[in-house]
Amino acid sequence: MNMDEVKKMAIFPIGDKFDSENFNGTVWLKMLTPFDSALPVANVTFEPGCRNSWHKHQGGQLLLVTGGRGYYQAWGEPARELRPGDVVEIPADVKHWHGAARDCWFVHLAIELFPEKGPATWLEPVSDDEYNALK
Amino acid sequence: MNMDEVKKMAIFPIGDKFDSENFNGTVWLKMLTPFDSALPVANVTFEPGCRNSWHKHQGGQLLLVTGGRGYYQAWGEPARELRPGDVVEIPADVKHWHGAARDCWFVHLAIELFPEKGPATWLEPVSDDEYNALK
Repeated sequence: MNMDEVKKMAIFPIGDKFDSENFNGTVWLKMLTPFDSALPVANVTFEPGCRNSWHKHQGGQLLLVTGGRGYYQAWGEPARELRPGDVVEIPADVKHWHGAARDCWFVHLAIELFPEKGPATWLEPVSDDEYNALK
Repeated sequence: MNMDEVKKMAIFPIGDKFDSENFNGTVWLKMLTPFDSALPVANVTFEPGCRNSWHKHQGGQLLLVTGGRGYYQAWGEPARELRPGDVVEIPADVKHWHGAARDCWFVHLAIELFPEKGPATWLEPVSDDEYNALK
């Protein structure tokens, strides 16, 4: 799937490439509400194989999956496969990662809860061994 | 479009018919997070011609449009046409309504901000004259 097809698949604007050491590949980010608003809502688009590092949110986070196929994994738990329509409620301070499947783009809305509690804490990358063991 | 086609169009689950005197037609509601959670997220599906009455939210509301065509109107302002990918930030205490176009289903996520401030205040219906004047 090329970028034009990804844009056609997406409901919300894809935005710009987001350069971050907390992702192992290319990710696009569009804030749908301002980053400093009461409810910052981000549209995040992962290229196939791209995922973020383990991290946690001081106020928790909500993921609403709108396209493609990907995963969410909480520390110590099996990864959960995600498809459009899936919702993930991530409790405060739970170490986790999310990202695309190896062979598929992945798009979700990410909503930070209680952003006034402070920024996310970023930890180690998801190892290739862990990721490649996923179905 | 029949209900099977609407379900195919929708990304998030449609849920059940929602019986409410605050809508002039048939609407389907699915809570994607619990109604009493920190961030209640509803998936709302309006049949063509269906809209809610004028109302306001004490903490404001965010609409994320995922399907079809509809409108948002704030009191004293022209109605805004909405399509998938559109986002509406409704400030606290602003009198408004939202709903479907005459000839099209309409689906949006609705997120209540600061739900702890209390429930919405429901007011008069949108008159047929107001609604039918929309393009």
